[in-house]
Amino acid sequence: MQKIINRLKRIEGQVRGIQKMVEDDRYCVDILVQISAIQSALKNVGFSITERHIKHCVSDAIKQGEGKETIEELLNVMKQFSK
Amino acid sequence: MQKIINRLKRIEGQVRGIQKMVEDDRYCVDILVQISAIQSALKNVGFSITERHIKHCVSDAIKQGEGKETIEELLNVMKQFSK
Amino acid sequence: MQKIINRLKRIEGQVRGIQKMVEDDRYCVDILVQISAIQSALKNVGFSITERHIKHCVSDAIKQGEGKETIEELLNVMKQFSK
Amino acid sequence: MQKIINRLKRIEGQVRGIQKMVEDDRYCVDILVQISAIQSALKNVGFSITERHIKHCVSDAIKQGEGKETIEELLNVMKQFSK
Repeated sequence: MQKIINRLKRIEGQVRGIQKMVEDDRYCVDILVQISAIQSALKNVGFSITERHIKHCVSDAIKQGEGKETIEELLNVMKQFSK
Repeated sequence: MQKIINRLKRIEGQVRGIQKMVEDDRYCVDILVQISAIQSALKNVGFSITERHIKHCVSDAIKQGEGKETIEELLNVMKQFSK
Repeated sequence: MQKIINRLKRIEGQVRGIQKMVEDDRYCVDILVQISAIQSALKNVGFSITERHIKHCVSDAIKQGEGKETIEELLNVMKQFSK
Repeated sequence: MQKIINRLKRIEGQVRGIQKMVEDDRYCVDILVQISAIQSALKNVGFSITERHIKHCVSDAIKQGEGKETIEELLNVMKQFSK
């Protein structure tokens, strides 16, 4: 998980960078490009965590014959993400 | 712009909150719900900046008969955002 | 699966409806609203199929201790979808 | 606009293709890949129409000093699209 924490620290820095860009009245399009980069980075963190979740929690629940609820929960969070 | 900076500060705090959740080994789905909340918040900041950009830079360029390039640039950033 | 086929038939009709709107030179924003409705409908079909896939293929593979590849494949298609 | 109508006809054919895939009980992941291809194609049609809209309606409204409402409307449809 250290890798994910490092990625989140980098994202935190990028968000701070955008604050600075807004304060410095930088060109809107340049700010939007940066925001879009953070979106991608966050999405990738989301995928890594989803991967982990499926490989562990979901798989374990399925193996124990208790997959139904865990799968519903997974699908709900996937739907929320896709909004 | 102060409102946008405040929203970015809140997002920065939320990103830090997720780091904590990962360190504390919190349930994956709870982390994913938080990431999805940040995605929404960032998207809204992106829209506010896009709105500002269209109302000022793009409108001014169009009024001066120089809209072509600015519109292309706007569409490109919109495409990047929608990825 | 009949429900999914019915939904796809409705989507097909909606796509034809947009062709007509474009031919009739209807207001761009009205066309965009319709396209966005189709996007939502398609996304929902995608979720239904994903649900089915996880509940059957993925679950079966995991139960047989062969989940690894199926999970990778699932994650890849989820990534493609989120673009 | 003929190009856009042609693209919509192709999309209509792709939607029909997916119905066939579902009827033939094809592998879920293959169906999902096709749905994701239609999503991209529709998104591109949406961008082409948005481009047209900005270059004509929105630009004309701005030139006549009546951009405010048109820009609001554009932003609303962009928000709907990004869901």
